Amino acid sequence: MYDGSKFHGWQIQSNAVAVQEVFQNALHCVIGDETDVKGCSRTDSGVHANMYCLGIKTTHKIPPERLKAALNRHLPNSIAVLECEEMPLDFHPRYDCKKKQYIYKIWNNEVRNPFYDGYALHYRFNNLDETILDRAAKNYLGTHDFTSFCTPDNRRPGDMSRTVYRSDVERNGDIVTFTVEADGFLYNMVRIMTGTLLRVAQGKIQPDEIPLIIEKKDRQLAGPTAPACGLYLNKVFY
Amino acid sequence: MYDGSKFHGWQIQSNAVAVQEVFQNALHCVIGDETDVKGCSRTDSGVHANMYCLGIKTTHKIPPERLKAALNRHLPNSIAVLECEEMPLDFHPRYDCKKKQYIYKIWNNEVRNPFYDGYALHYRFNNLDETILDRAAKNYLGTHDFTSFCTPDNRRPGDMSRTVYRSDVERNGDIVTFTVEADGFLYNMVRIMTGTLLRVAQGKIQPDEIPLIIEKKDRQLAGPTAPACGLYLNKVFY
Repeated sequence: MYDGSKFHGWQIQSNAVAVQEVFQNALHCVIGDETDVKGCSRTDSGVHANMYCLGIKTTHKIPPERLKAALNRHLPNSIAVLECEEMPLDFHPRYDCKKKQYIYKIWNNEVRNPFYDGYALHYRFNNLDETILDRAAKNYLGTHDFTSFCTPDNRRPGDMSRTVYRSDVERNGDIVTFTVEADGFLYNMVRIMTGTLLRVAQGKIQPDEIPLIIEKKDRQLAGPTAPACGLYLNKVFY
Repeated sequence: MYDGSKFHGWQIQSNAVAVQEVFQNALHCVIGDETDVKGCSRTDSGVHANMYCLGIKTTHKIPPERLKAALNRHLPNSIAVLECEEMPLDFHPRYDCKKKQYIYKIWNNEVRNPFYDGYALHYRFNNLDETILDRAAKNYLGTHDFTSFCTPDNRRPGDMSRTVYRSDVERNGDIVTFTVEADGFLYNMVRIMTGTLLRVAQGKIQPDEIPLIIEKKDRQLAGPTAPACGLYLNKVFY
């Protein structure tokens, strides 16, 4: 679990602090050797994780419960280890993942909420009808080529087909949450899905136009990429 | 409404940034003249406010709705103006206040929650029985001299008697909340009430010893002052 507002994403980079780097440093303090940490997902800068799975290979004999406690002592408050478990040697947190659930939080009030600054998108207009957005979101369900919902990225070529198992919009007071579950996600996919739902709220895209946007495989037809701050990796399934 | 983790309390001081100072600067940008801002309470460094009332006197003709919007544009994200209203000239946000409600949030899990860092006390032990704490908290109800629940402070002499109208402890998952409502609060009163409830959780104070602690008017008998981060001014009643 980590507060993504404090990091430049998961993956180690040369010019900014990433979760992976901070985690590897804590691990080094606890078990000594240089261990490569494998994550379940490359979350972007500012994206949060209510759950995140990673794997390490070590010959160290420390019991999982003690490793968890020691890591939590060495990590900053912005990262917490919830569980440690021994796994088969061939386990891979990314390739063995069956599906993931993301949530996107929107604070929907004319006035911002200081406690959601960096933790939800502030959408000030009163046209966010969760019933209409939920109907629109249902169009994401099923197996589709999601090219229209992916930021082009040469580093990540390959199959653009993903299966979405769940896609809901709910309101709880002034917080509107988009929940989406799939066997995998393309680059920026949830944030573009959210940006498209906001276009639906604004009446610029009709809910039943979404199947056509998917079919056309054209990034220009979907909505903008919503900011990272509202996005949370919420569950990882194996 | 403000996120107290970003400020050294409400009241202006020479060596740290206070909410009052930031607010007065924003006000100066909007209406120009030097206006004295009167707050409803002197919250400590790190204490949050879900609601906070303040008063200004001005001859400026700006309508309340426009003042609110303009202030929100000039204030940092950590402060938000929820309402602006014209009041009688003799209105005083502190002296006219009938009662206030504070809440104190405790994250009760062995592992910390990065999203509550600075926003709740982390209490890791599994002895926080909200039924027992609620029974203990009921002893705060009524009109008492709360000297035992006040940090001695020569700058604030006077009557130590306060009337507590509500005093509950509730659990919602891993969040335990103490809610207390009174006609006024002594210096650190809610934080010492909370520290005393934690002593009850640890079995060091029995719930039915609280009336005696109140009666003795001895700060040494109550529990420690709980950290500021869990405390929120939640409602102000006029």
